[in-house]
Amino acid sequence: MSRIITLTTDFGTQDHYVSVMKAVMLGITPTSRLIDISHEIPPQDIMAGAWVIRNAAFQFPKGSVHLVVVDPGVGTDRHPIALKINDQYFVGPDNGIFSLITNQFKYKAYKLNKPEYWLKDRSRTFHGRDIFSPVAAHLSEGVDIKQLGEPIKDLVSYHWAVPIGDKDGVQGWVIHIDRFGNLITNISESLLEETAGRRKVRVYVGNTIIDHMVNTFGDVEPGEPAAFIGSSGMLEVGINKGNAAQMLGVDKGAQISLVLQK
Amino acid sequence: MSRIITLTTDFGTQDHYVSVMKAVMLGITPTSRLIDISHEIPPQDIMAGAWVIRNAAFQFPKGSVHLVVVDPGVGTDRHPIALKINDQYFVGPDNGIFSLITNQFKYKAYKLNKPEYWLKDRSRTFHGRDIFSPVAAHLSEGVDIKQLGEPIKDLVSYHWAVPIGDKDGVQGWVIHIDRFGNLITNISESLLEETAGRRKVRVYVGNTIIDHMVNTFGDVEPGEPAAFIGSSGMLEVGINKGNAAQMLGVDKGAQISLVLQK
Amino acid sequence: MSRIITLTTDFGTQDHYVSVMKAVMLGITPTSRLIDISHEIPPQDIMAGAWVIRNAAFQFPKGSVHLVVVDPGVGTDRHPIALKINDQYFVGPDNGIFSLITNQFKYKAYKLNKPEYWLKDRSRTFHGRDIFSPVAAHLSEGVDIKQLGEPIKDLVSYHWAVPIGDKDGVQGWVIHIDRFGNLITNISESLLEETAGRRKVRVYVGNTIIDHMVNTFGDVEPGEPAAFIGSSGMLEVGINKGNAAQMLGVDKGAQISLVLQK
Repeated sequence: MSRIITLTTDFGTQDHYVSVMKAVMLGITPTSRLIDISHEIPPQDIMAGAWVIRNAAFQFPKGSVHLVVVDPGVGTDRHPIALKINDQYFVGPDNGIFSLITNQFKYKAYKLNKPEYWLKDRSRTFHGRDIFSPVAAHLSEGVDIKQLGEPIKDLVSYHWAVPIGDKDGVQGWVIHIDRFGNLITNISESLLEETAGRRKVRVYVGNTIIDHMVNTFGDVEPGEPAAFIGSSGMLEVGINKGNAAQMLGVDKGAQISLVLQK
Repeated sequence: MSRIITLTTDFGTQDHYVSVMKAVMLGITPTSRLIDISHEIPPQDIMAGAWVIRNAAFQFPKGSVHLVVVDPGVGTDRHPIALKINDQYFVGPDNGIFSLITNQFKYKAYKLNKPEYWLKDRSRTFHGRDIFSPVAAHLSEGVDIKQLGEPIKDLVSYHWAVPIGDKDGVQGWVIHIDRFGNLITNISESLLEETAGRRKVRVYVGNTIIDHMVNTFGDVEPGEPAAFIGSSGMLEVGINKGNAAQMLGVDKGAQISLVLQK
Repeated sequence: MSRIITLTTDFGTQDHYVSVMKAVMLGITPTSRLIDISHEIPPQDIMAGAWVIRNAAFQFPKGSVHLVVVDPGVGTDRHPIALKINDQYFVGPDNGIFSLITNQFKYKAYKLNKPEYWLKDRSRTFHGRDIFSPVAAHLSEGVDIKQLGEPIKDLVSYHWAVPIGDKDGVQGWVIHIDRFGNLITNISESLLEETAGRRKVRVYVGNTIIDHMVNTFGDVEPGEPAAFIGSSGMLEVGINKGNAAQMLGVDKGAQISLVLQK
């Protein structure tokens, strides 16, 4: 059975960059399946890329290889790396792009230093094509990750601001806004349960107060805001048949407060 | 030979949503081909999605499965359904998204109610991942559609405004504007032939009068508007080497009038 | 081993057009791999399409078929053509879209005139679906290119403005701006070497003077402009962790001057 290689980049789709990476990979692994996760990561936004790959990767079958190239430091001395986590493989720059995965799961990391697995002619500005794509393709063809580099321990790692919980509630932040304008926060379902238990919570975001949480935005009237646990397991605020970011005037990074009711 | 699963959604491609549906499907049907129709349906615009799937679906080989998720009512009591039409399969919410197909073709419809064909852990907000994708994958693997649910008769159905024809001409509407700014109307080639026969027609749209119809926009000078039967079999107004929607100041929903000449 | 068909168009991905071309091809060649290069070529911008296919095509394995449809003259008397270059195949309109390849490589060209390899029902406005897709699919299935049409010699051909070099330096132009805002010029690495040799160059673009060239934008401070040979082998101007087009106020077509230092 053919393996899967996923692609996540900030390259967009108007240029030839993504297709050239695919061409390189197909030259090495003609039968692997190439699945685009997203090429619309905002340019050089490492944490936006980290969020997307964190949500997508572990839904794929075992043995999948995840190529992730959001790489503002290309051509500098940041390391190219490969990771093995839960029978899945990750290839990309060591710049924090895997933070939301490595913070959560046990991993083995390798610093890529075997040019025999790279393209022969290499540029200083497109390691996605010259290093990461051929390495991903060789992994997909079954090359042992240990052959591609040497073990490395300390990876560059970023953290979301950690939500603050106390007896009165939780203070968190909007970490992502999706295409529908839903506000996705760093407050996880488990933190919410830990803090609130069975008590009711009121949600404050921007100038809006949401009286209580619901199961889905369909539980409120069209045009009304709803707070619920979304499909990523995080607290979200959305508007039934509307765009919460626009209608509430709230942007990425905004505070969101949960206040426990008596 | 492997079957084809097509995907049509309003999810966009910046988030992980589409890739997660693909991951779920590949876990069930590792050899099906996944073909994106569009993920750029305007958020929650059911009729825009209905138009795209109506134009694309029957171009695909027999046995194809079409996954269509424009689903503003997710998590409410709208039904998940599967349809069989002309040896093709359709999976999505019963919210009118299949209207332009079911209005035109004979179909068998099933209300999906067999959770053994869904993901075990299900959210209230992402049935595309939890219900529709696994059902599409099982259909592609050859599971009989009758096993997935029970027959249902009355589907939610929307209609385009019906063009009005009389002895003087036809009154219709712009139902879609494509990337080139072409104005696509609800006036079909057959209605036009029925009404006008071999008589010449003059076309009124916005503040513009087009003196007669042509075969293609290349039949008029660059910058000039042209009215013709487009590749979808509907009357279109375009501008040779220009954007008709912008240059004529016409939007979706605008009236378009055909006046028969003597 | 299955062959590859790539797709490059100005169709965008919100409409059904691209998927319909894929459906037609899969009906003829069910096992070919379909790889999107780009569908975001600006509408009817032939040279933008020429640039993308020039950069992507020859990265793909031998035997690949490249379908390129940027076709403002569809339905007029411009010829549909197929080309063979270096064991790769190209299919599209004869409107200059292949200029940057045919200017550089030896080719054999054929004017497509065998309707038995096209769809039976053909529109006047969508030859991508009706002519080019089936021809690409038949090529991928191994049909000899000579069977698809008759040899043709003079193709429509456009040229970039040629950069002007003399003893003082080189005068060139910005021919493409990528998603990151990098300014890609028509000054190739070889022209630069020929003109400058080992002498230092100063780069003038918009109101900005860049004192010397570097290897990659990571060699300058964040926010600073950098001039370097990019991954396409052309002189580029970028800004480290910034968008050069926006920050320098420079658009496609702008002049760029290299002045040799003593």
